[in-house]
Amino acid sequence: MKLVIVGGSAGGTSVATRVRRANESASITLFERTAHIASAYCGLPYHVGGVIAQRETLLPVNPAELARRHRLNIRTRHEVLAVNRPAQTVTVRDLADGRIFEEPYDKLVLATGAEAHLPALPGIELPGVFGLRNLPDLDRIMDWVKTRPVRHATVVGGGFVGLELAENLVRRGYAVSLIEAGPRLMPALDPEFSRLALDHTRAHGVDVRLGDTLASIAPRARLRAALAHGETLDTDLVLLTPGVRPANALARAAGVALGGRGGILVDEQMRSSDAAIYAVGDAIEAPCAVTGEAVWVPLAVPLNQQVRILASALAGEPARYRGALGTFVCRLFDLTVAATGLTEQRLRALSRPFEQVLIPGTSHVGFYPDAQTLYLKLLFDPLDGKLLGAQAAGRAGVDKRIDVLATALTAGMTVYDIEAIELAYAPPYGAPRDVVNLAGAVATSLLREKVRGVAPAALPAASRDLFVLDVRTLEEHEFGAIPGAVHIPADAVRERLHELPRDKPIVVSCQIGAKAHSVTRLLSQRGYKARNL
Amino acid sequence: MKLVIVGGSAGGTSVATRVRRANESASITLFERTAHIASAYCGLPYHVGGVIAQRETLLPVNPAELARRHRLNIRTRHEVLAVNRPAQTVTVRDLADGRIFEEPYDKLVLATGAEAHLPALPGIELPGVFGLRNLPDLDRIMDWVKTRPVRHATVVGGGFVGLELAENLVRRGYAVSLIEAGPRLMPALDPEFSRLALDHTRAHGVDVRLGDTLASIAPRARLRAALAHGETLDTDLVLLTPGVRPANALARAAGVALGGRGGILVDEQMRSSDAAIYAVGDAIEAPCAVTGEAVWVPLAVPLNQQVRILASALAGEPARYRGALGTFVCRLFDLTVAATGLTEQRLRALSRPFEQVLIPGTSHVGFYPDAQTLYLKLLFDPLDGKLLGAQAAGRAGVDKRIDVLATALTAGMTVYDIEAIELAYAPPYGAPRDVVNLAGAVATSLLREKVRGVAPAALPAASRDLFVLDVRTLEEHEFGAIPGAVHIPADAVRERLHELPRDKPIVVSCQIGAKAHSVTRLLSQRGYKARNL
Repeated sequence: MKLVIVGGSAGGTSVATRVRRANESASITLFERTAHIASAYCGLPYHVGGVIAQRETLLPVNPAELARRHRLNIRTRHEVLAVNRPAQTVTVRDLADGRIFEEPYDKLVLATGAEAHLPALPGIELPGVFGLRNLPDLDRIMDWVKTRPVRHATVVGGGFVGLELAENLVRRGYAVSLIEAGPRLMPALDPEFSRLALDHTRAHGVDVRLGDTLASIAPRARLRAALAHGETLDTDLVLLTPGVRPANALARAAGVALGGRGGILVDEQMRSSDAAIYAVGDAIEAPCAVTGEAVWVPLAVPLNQQVRILASALAGEPARYRGALGTFVCRLFDLTVAATGLTEQRLRALSRPFEQVLIPGTSHVGFYPDAQTLYLKLLFDPLDGKLLGAQAAGRAGVDKRIDVLATALTAGMTVYDIEAIELAYAPPYGAPRDVVNLAGAVATSLLREKVRGVAPAALPAASRDLFVLDVRTLEEHEFGAIPGAVHIPADAVRERLHELPRDKPIVVSCQIGAKAHSVTRLLSQRGYKARNL
Repeated sequence: MKLVIVGGSAGGTSVATRVRRANESASITLFERTAHIASAYCGLPYHVGGVIAQRETLLPVNPAELARRHRLNIRTRHEVLAVNRPAQTVTVRDLADGRIFEEPYDKLVLATGAEAHLPALPGIELPGVFGLRNLPDLDRIMDWVKTRPVRHATVVGGGFVGLELAENLVRRGYAVSLIEAGPRLMPALDPEFSRLALDHTRAHGVDVRLGDTLASIAPRARLRAALAHGETLDTDLVLLTPGVRPANALARAAGVALGGRGGILVDEQMRSSDAAIYAVGDAIEAPCAVTGEAVWVPLAVPLNQQVRILASALAGEPARYRGALGTFVCRLFDLTVAATGLTEQRLRALSRPFEQVLIPGTSHVGFYPDAQTLYLKLLFDPLDGKLLGAQAAGRAGVDKRIDVLATALTAGMTVYDIEAIELAYAPPYGAPRDVVNLAGAVATSLLREKVRGVAPAALPAASRDLFVLDVRTLEEHEFGAIPGAVHIPADAVRERLHELPRDKPIVVSCQIGAKAHSVTRLLSQRGYKARNL
């Protein structure tokens, strides 16, 4: 078999080594446009802040050494210009000497990744204005910050990379402004978690501007960044986190079927609409593991799974890609934000019925030092309780809970199952009843209609028809209260039932939810229409 | 309903509050022999070392306040002397005034926990010799260490509590000897992990004596602890971690059915052989979630699950206890050791066929700072690949991996499923291919018989019939090698195939397993009988 791979970042490179491992006799040729292969893009922002001190650690593989070890034909600085499907060849340009040649293939793998598009802003070509997508970009940025006095930096884009960059620029001691066109940070998350990320980022001194865009950059003594809403920022460094989309030019020109987001459509064996052409990674749209619809999930973990499936498929072994969950985790200063599966906003967009719970918890038992608050949201099917997605944020233990729930999602578990998982407990690590179990329990209660919850967001609109009962202690109540709420401490509710209305819903609120849960149960049993806020 | 609960530690107390939450009208009476309820026993060793500084944090609940808040009849310092099943009463002694009375019940819950038995050693009554099972014990120990000069402490027992105590005594600045009668520490784990725990404990300065027992203690200027093998230790403090067993005296006397370990046998609704008597926690034997056999798992997480099931059962709601996995985690200085499900030794004892993999990995990607090595072992069914158990040890990320695998075990996942879980990745948290996925992949390969592994323990006995091939780099090889192994660096194997035997099995070894895996695949394809060490 003659295998040709287009693209030498992590995906293409691991396709090459994996296929070699399964097949000693295959001829394997890889074309990569840049001089580097298998770069660790996800580490780039951390080098800016010095967390990853050595640039070389971001370059894990020497192309010649990898080629020799696995008997691969690795051609860096070679650009593939076209795929000629009838002839089963690719047209390649050697960027060193400009020579163009045809390379035949039996099987072709498109691992072309994503392409970054920077906006055509006036001033984008100025010194001190950079995109960050690859190692050459990073090298230019590092040259700049090491040789110029930088006091203020401007980051454009409030997604993962923008936030990681902002954190790392703060770590360098710069004042940082972050410009995000949308109404919130981390649009991949539901609004509650975007809000946590925003508050936390601002608390660490980042000047976050939402709903605004960079309009132009002008050279002054420093750079002057003009925002669309009229303000200007005097700044020394502008970092643009580019919008990304599947790099589909080759596939499109060759007539390979693409999905709605522009990704190459693949089947469960990672095969495109052309049986001789496979694709993996940021260039494809893969089935969502929960809904089955084609989704674009440009993340490293799904890529690795896809490479594994592809190598098995090429070797004729049984393998089936189960689809992507979109599990991710991101560090924002000392906050961790993570998610798996579908979000509330995605479920609404799909018009898919769901229920949800959002609870606070702690990373481990309170009596052991350094317990941290974390927030966990579960989204699940209202009929059978099947988990649909989860999100979490906090200072510790967040990645663990989301990994447990990603496993539960992979297994098709329900909230009843999640309540019953026997997790590991010792005081430094968790609790006899982990926040995951607790969220499962609250979800289970909700499905059994013992305790009807109501989301805070639903409250203001409905408040005239509701009786809001605040059951916190007197001390807690002194810190402020919901306007219009009636305050009766939980311990006194049994004696003061006569103060509560029987004719309208009672929304019970407390500090973290436990007392309100007990009171809601009590009231429900006494015939009141109680819901836990 | 008149509910009587015997025992006011975490289990009995939460039965009381949970039943109240489900049932406003029940009469709920709880009898507890000591003055305290709901104590956090798992925190006791940490108070010794000052990690948990405030004793009060170990006493989370005030009995009177809890009673008032949930309308419970909580009687501390009341001992239940007998269960009279035909009359449905318990005989109770008020320890304050010695009065004995009968208390009727509709339903009875036995939450009597475990009882600690200290060996009848000569000298066990001496000042400075203590058991550690409850808060009064802890108080006596803390009084002693605060008022006497302690330089050396002796801990008897190498299970969780003994090791946590040893760590906390080292934290106080004492020299510590730990005496364990068995051949290894943490007998609940397989030997590889016991060995890691031993090395780590010794590396932190603890004088560990295996296969020896404390024979007697004599008063000298200090205490003199005589060991069974003849040595003596001059010491200032002897802490005995008691052997524990189900506290079954009441149940036994009342003729309630017990299991082989002495625990009260319960069904899936936590009901004993008497339909009016339920039991939870350390007093019971529950079905193993993997095998279904009755097992004794005295841990806090199964207890919590059992309490939940019991409360649902008493409320007439559908609920079924799925059994215990025995998931646990333990911190040993800066090492974390954790496990879930069955161990190799347990599988052998059950004569149940299994396969296993044991691999090294890292807590997160190596290019991000502070990546820590961890070891992960999977045990699984040789036919269908179903997970049977997992163990892990390392300095970071161990609890997360075991929680993921406990979830997988709960869901009945196979190693094929485990290879495909999409976990969360960002450089500070994991890897594009997590050690969990990697272990699943190695297990999958093994089942598909591409790569036959061989455990290091099997090597010495078989070595005359084997050709051991060391494929590490020259640099790695200089640090030492397996006696008799032939060294050919992985990169040179293809060129030196003629040096390898075709007539006997080749065991391929390297530093961490990746190179050996590739070479094993290569050799297998060329017709050699290769296995990865």
